[in-house]
Amino acid sequence: MSQAFHQEPHKLLVIPGPIEVTDEVLYANARPPLAHTGADFIPIFGDCLRMMRDVLYTEAGQPFLVAGSGTLGWDMAASNLVEAGEDVLLLTTGYFGDAFAECYEAYGAKVDLIRAPIGGAVPESEIRAALKAKKYKVLTFTHVDTSTGVLSDAKMIGEVVREVSPDTLIVLDGVCAVASEQILFDTWGIDVVVSASQKGLGAPPGLSVLMASQRAINTMQNRKVPVSSYYASWKKWLPIMQAYEKGLPAYFATPPVNLVQAFHASLTAITKGVPNLQTRFTMHKEASAKIKGAMQELGLELLTLDPYYSANGMSAVKYPTGIKMADLIPRLVKKNIVVTGGLHKDVKDTYFRIGHMGTTVVNPERGDIEKVISGVKEALSEAGYKGKM
Amino acid sequence: MSQAFHQEPHKLLVIPGPIEVTDEVLYANARPPLAHTGADFIPIFGDCLRMMRDVLYTEAGQPFLVAGSGTLGWDMAASNLVEAGEDVLLLTTGYFGDAFAECYEAYGAKVDLIRAPIGGAVPESEIRAALKAKKYKVLTFTHVDTSTGVLSDAKMIGEVVREVSPDTLIVLDGVCAVASEQILFDTWGIDVVVSASQKGLGAPPGLSVLMASQRAINTMQNRKVPVSSYYASWKKWLPIMQAYEKGLPAYFATPPVNLVQAFHASLTAITKGVPNLQTRFTMHKEASAKIKGAMQELGLELLTLDPYYSANGMSAVKYPTGIKMADLIPRLVKKNIVVTGGLHKDVKDTYFRIGHMGTTVVNPERGDIEKVISGVKEALSEAGYKGKM
Repeated sequence: MSQAFHQEPHKLLVIPGPIEVTDEVLYANARPPLAHTGADFIPIFGDCLRMMRDVLYTEAGQPFLVAGSGTLGWDMAASNLVEAGEDVLLLTTGYFGDAFAECYEAYGAKVDLIRAPIGGAVPESEIRAALKAKKYKVLTFTHVDTSTGVLSDAKMIGEVVREVSPDTLIVLDGVCAVASEQILFDTWGIDVVVSASQKGLGAPPGLSVLMASQRAINTMQNRKVPVSSYYASWKKWLPIMQAYEKGLPAYFATPPVNLVQAFHASLTAITKGVPNLQTRFTMHKEASAKIKGAMQELGLELLTLDPYYSANGMSAVKYPTGIKMADLIPRLVKKNIVVTGGLHKDVKDTYFRIGHMGTTVVNPERGDIEKVISGVKEALSEAGYKGKM
Repeated sequence: MSQAFHQEPHKLLVIPGPIEVTDEVLYANARPPLAHTGADFIPIFGDCLRMMRDVLYTEAGQPFLVAGSGTLGWDMAASNLVEAGEDVLLLTTGYFGDAFAECYEAYGAKVDLIRAPIGGAVPESEIRAALKAKKYKVLTFTHVDTSTGVLSDAKMIGEVVREVSPDTLIVLDGVCAVASEQILFDTWGIDVVVSASQKGLGAPPGLSVLMASQRAINTMQNRKVPVSSYYASWKKWLPIMQAYEKGLPAYFATPPVNLVQAFHASLTAITKGVPNLQTRFTMHKEASAKIKGAMQELGLELLTLDPYYSANGMSAVKYPTGIKMADLIPRLVKKNIVVTGGLHKDVKDTYFRIGHMGTTVVNPERGDIEKVISGVKEALSEAGYKGKM
């Protein structure tokens, strides 16, 4: 049956998540539900945890896989690591950085924001200066801010923290980065990666996907005041994750057994399939360069200021003069191509966003990248854009 | 394709959730992901909210549909309604009542527990006395406690509260009750129903399903101290739910677009299909009576003490003398029937649990109920049980 299953014809979903998903993953999502503490399900969950480590190049990281969205991962990081009145340094490169700050504040953190210029990343010098000026419990940054397509330099941030303020915990929001950008969790000294199932990880949304260092777990264990959230408390989830990984039943809340099977199918392709993990990252870079190059060739500018700080799993592209969202996006929808508008509050009407992650990238025989490029080209032409075409 | 889709052959899942799910629902779960703020998805989400009202017979209730488990619903009820130091009266009829108390305490509530005898419900006189003795912000009870199969009398509880302590908010844990037990949200004066997608609601797990009265929403709006959870905060979710219902895009977290489509398929069958909602409740009663009667006919006793306080969507059945879990459950698995063991901590090794909800009940042509009954009968016989057979 799996061989015979083909998903319904549909519009090409090339927003920065949710993304196109393979037939295998969708078919796994349609398997008959399994008993959540039964012998058929436990090893599937355990495998997911192990493969999460592989994706993030970590051996000692503690994975958490919980029903919820990426936002729940913020909740887990903020509520478990920070106590009221503690200082957090947050580097923001767009909407999601700003919103994560609000999440920290909900748990009583005092957040100092360093705001990058629109389309840019926070310079190393500013990070260094901030860490020298004050002792922070946590430094948080968005690896790829979905609102702008800015890619932060996670490796550099890890190095600066280790040099200037080694006790500071590093929380990386990887919702729009995991599996489309390489993240060396152990080598870079990251303490928490927050992610979700529906972007580079190639499954439908509904799973909060998180990796915590032992240092992060210890921080939670040694809190002065208990975590003020019940559902986000690692104290509740840690024994569950440990049990599943050992192949034992445990219960705190019913896991989303179908999504976990879909996630298992996607993780298996990512970590054990062809192309391999390393090649997948290369392919994301190539697809990104191809799309960004094609947009520039058309005379369109990118929102991101510097290729080095541009995501490989998405592109934020400015409308050319005379073209508005209503000129482009509905025309693409008519061509069965779904991109999305801008999200950064100051400039949201000036650009659109294309997602290029997962099967759209690593299965080039689908022709998705070419469809997007030619679709944008045709739509702009229909809208009267002369440009460089 | 939908017509042609048949789920894989599998063991009959008759635990009290997750349950058997129809081909239509599973196929919906395998639809290509949709953009979460797009025109194709918004009305599906809005319809789900409207159909949630239908299932609970409410006009003014505010539905919440959020990626998460039933446990997240506890979190939402406790964190939004109760402030530190406030009093909660909790009627517990098993494991889930006790655990919900812990959730309230995580948010600073002072919880008074009234514990029912194992297999029984809390008597009206005790509820009345407790409400007279102290002013409670919230009274909470588990409509069906999945650990014991006890059904509480929600209508009576509503009447007693209105008579003795009308300002007390009523929170009904309906995870194992919604859509298998009739709940008249408005008529009974319930303030919050907490549920999840994977039991009577007939979809895979992964959706927290909650209904709040306007009184509950007002209580949240008029808090002295902000909600101490970020992901569970109704302040965040309320505008999202209102927008989806109006057909407008809004974003706080990415909804689980596939599960929402599966839930939509199941809710459509429940509220607009054949048999109709009212008949479905009757069929759950009949199936329950049939299973419970057959078990008693075999000489097995129920854990529940009184048929009036016994759930219609599940049964908790004691092993007969000389039979242990290991004698029965693995034999049933060999017959491709999955039931589950006991869960009430004091007596968990003395009984097993059968779920009979959703398609297993309302599509009798499947023969699920008969399979379970004959399976138990054969397995007991193979285990050497002579009993009344």
